[in-house]
Amino acid sequence: MEFSSKLIEKAVNEISQLPGIGKRSALRLVLHLLKQPKEQTDFLSQALVAMRTDIKYCKNCHNISDHDVCEICANPKRNHELVCVVEDIRDVMAIEGTGQFRGVYHVLGGKISPIEGVGPSQLKISSLVEKVKSGLVAEVIFALSSTMEGDTTNFYIYKQIADSNIIMSTIARGIAVGDELEYADEVTLGRSILHRIPFEKSIKSN
Amino acid sequence: MEFSSKLIEKAVNEISQLPGIGKRSALRLVLHLLKQPKEQTDFLSQALVAMRTDIKYCKNCHNISDHDVCEICANPKRNHELVCVVEDIRDVMAIEGTGQFRGVYHVLGGKISPIEGVGPSQLKISSLVEKVKSGLVAEVIFALSSTMEGDTTNFYIYKQIADSNIIMSTIARGIAVGDELEYADEVTLGRSILHRIPFEKSIKSN
Ligand SMILES: [Zn+2]
Ligand SMILES: [Zn+2]
Repeated sequence: MEFSSKLIEKAVNEISQLPGIGKRSALRLVLHLLKQPKEQTDFLSQALVAMRTDIKYCKNCHNISDHDVCEICANPKRNHELVCVVEDIRDVMAIEGTGQFRGVYHVLGGKISPIEGVGPSQLKISSLVEKVKSGLVAEVIFALSSTMEGDTTNFYIYKQIADSNIIMSTIARGIAVGDELEYADEVTLGRSILHRIPFEKSIKSN
Repeated sequence: MEFSSKLIEKAVNEISQLPGIGKRSALRLVLHLLKQPKEQTDFLSQALVAMRTDIKYCKNCHNISDHDVCEICANPKRNHELVCVVEDIRDVMAIEGTGQFRGVYHVLGGKISPIEGVGPSQLKISSLVEKVKSGLVAEVIFALSSTMEGDTTNFYIYKQIADSNIIMSTIARGIAVGDELEYADEVTLGRSILHRIPFEKSIKSN
């Protein structure tokens, strides 16, 4: 692609670094912004920079938050002994959307994936293990997507807390195997939380 | 969608105002940026604001440019009496990519579209008519997409310059009717420029 403007070229190159957006789509977005009032581009840029600069992660559960401790962890009405282990904020949003869960979360920030170069040390696993060993947790619910990476991550954590005296469960597989949590409908997802099964049982049925 | 962070919510809302990007895709992009170094978000934002703030339009042909007169219009080797009328910069890029055209362009900035509320006054039509009436143009090539809107726009311009003593042509329909110019392959598009036909003939064959 040959551009008549370096400004356009630079904007297209930056946008097309985002996943799933090619150069043609990026150019379409740039031309759209040029037709809109300048303020729209300003607001977009400011929102992105503010988000990236000021974002915080809850020091309890590592969920994205605007405060040091997220609203869920700060809520005394939630059951803080019941910890649901998820991949990222989208899963928290999906489960919160069901209205079925009154515990708290532990957000790993991803799944173990040798292919994508994500090892256990890049995830928030050790703080979960510490939480469990400190005796403040009664039950851990594994709610990662039922993919190879999700199963690997579940099992990696399981091995480290297997000797602790807590209940470990996984959400019921009302959700199709291989599907991403965030695309599940709320009823199915809510039910899979209610019908969670002991983790050992979930290994055997594999 | 319920967000645990106003910063995330704001960024998602701004991104999802772009055409073809829903809230879920916007959230995915935001989470991607959070995983990348902060600089990527800074560069993206800076590129967007610089593009929107400093962009210029060539005062001859209205194409997007970094200068008052674009490189094509400023090139003495181009034939300035041969004017190719296109919708936007993507069409200029597509035609330049063929290497078949040595004239100059006139970029309308869109097509007449009552449905989208685009009337002739919002397009750069009057300056084209003036250019023709000033006697500096020998031939006008209509290279808008062969859609209803493209045909309407062609015909609107044609009526205003029909009494002038110039050649009017349209690019040969090697391109499938209804297809967008920018997605045509370079050989087909290049040939359609070389085999352009008199405009009157193109009306009759409709
Ligand atoms: Zn928290
Ligand atoms: Zn120009």
